[in-house]
Amino acid sequence: MSSYELFYWPGIQGRGEFVRLVLEDAGADYVDVGRKPDGYKRILAALNGEIGPHVLAPPILRAGDVVLAQTANITRFVGERHGLAPADEPGRLAAATIALTIADLVDEVHDTHHPITVAEAYEKQKPAAAERARAFRDKRLPKYVGYLERNLTGDWLVGGACSYTDLAAFQIVEGLRYAFPRAFAQVSCPKLLALRDRVAARPNIAAYLASDRRLPFNEHGIFRRYPELDSSSET
Amino acid sequence: MSSYELFYWPGIQGRGEFVRLVLEDAGADYVDVGRKPDGYKRILAALNGEIGPHVLAPPILRAGDVVLAQTANITRFVGERHGLAPADEPGRLAAATIALTIADLVDEVHDTHHPITVAEAYEKQKPAAAERARAFRDKRLPKYVGYLERNLTGDWLVGGACSYTDLAAFQIVEGLRYAFPRAFAQVSCPKLLALRDRVAARPNIAAYLASDRRLPFNEHGIFRRYPELDSSSET
Repeated sequence: MSSYELFYWPGIQGRGEFVRLVLEDAGADYVDVGRKPDGYKRILAALNGEIGPHVLAPPILRAGDVVLAQTANITRFVGERHGLAPADEPGRLAAATIALTIADLVDEVHDTHHPITVAEAYEKQKPAAAERARAFRDKRLPKYVGYLERNLTGDWLVGGACSYTDLAAFQIVEGLRYAFPRAFAQVSCPKLLALRDRVAARPNIAAYLASDRRLPFNEHGIFRRYPELDSSSET
Repeated sequence: MSSYELFYWPGIQGRGEFVRLVLEDAGADYVDVGRKPDGYKRILAALNGEIGPHVLAPPILRAGDVVLAQTANITRFVGERHGLAPADEPGRLAAATIALTIADLVDEVHDTHHPITVAEAYEKQKPAAAERARAFRDKRLPKYVGYLERNLTGDWLVGGACSYTDLAAFQIVEGLRYAFPRAFAQVSCPKLLALRDRVAARPNIAAYLASDRRLPFNEHGIFRRYPELDSSSET
């Protein structure tokens, strides 16, 4: 039996990808339950309380008798177990703070295409999406990217080594390049882009990105390429 | 010098209230910086990176050389230090999961009055707010309340004692009663209401609620009473 079971929707990177990146970089033994033949059924059973009443939505991780949800909670848990987190308390809590702030950014990216309700498709809420996406591009995107940039006083976001928070920042760059190529190109963040390359070059991450376990982005996940939600030009 | 400094906007309960409830229940020595004469200036300095680059928004807590932000991160930190958290690892991570899920609910409550942008007032985004609030009342509110209810198999959300997560659930009931009195009255949650009363009766919480440190809800915080965003009737 594997050390970890990840419960996440099949077919998309989504929030699950932040967990996968930590598990892959750690070289951890894990099963991506959603991609197994009975996976969808098992996810629904988990959401029905079968592995604990406290998990409401994927991603969910099971590790022995520990069951937890919430992306930044899971990545912290796995990161701290595998040396992908600062060892000192101030650093551990700074990393947790950054990871949760990145989770807020992910929520805001999601809401650019679903500003009204998750119960309806993007196509049913396009006028509000256009408005929310404009506010996101103009105000929120530069704010969050500037925040990550200012935390890069060294090679890594916290302390002297790579942590789960750096892996999350890598995924943010990949996602923003996919979903908002024009708006993201307008934000100067040389340190963040260098961090992205540093993460991509880590052997386990490079192997993962080259594997078929790394799904391409698509318009069912969090980061979606809807050109009408991006800036109208790069300049 | 106090053990804790809380940095949060003055004049509202907001997300800071979740932190105050844990500090108050713990009987901790803390300063609510925002309510001091130079408080607003000190908050702006903190947001300008003065106490660490990793904090982007209040609430922020400083405890010696530890500086952290993100509501559920702070309440977990304080709760675990003061016996207001499960002692075992599965319980600790279940509590963290529930607290972060409550934080998601708080975000969704916020977005009922600010569905498009935080840069503009509610009055500038009322049509989208009406739509988002309807979806919230119909789908999300029952989902989250049902989730809390199903976690109450005993007196407390996790394990056999009160934790920071129970204090957060108390605040959710108070907030929903204020902001969505009609819609919330339509959701059956007897165990959650009993938990609310159990928390309110805790000596330190009762003393806090009777003090002038507990501000009333108002239309500048997260939970706002806009009757047009609530259900049209209780039946």
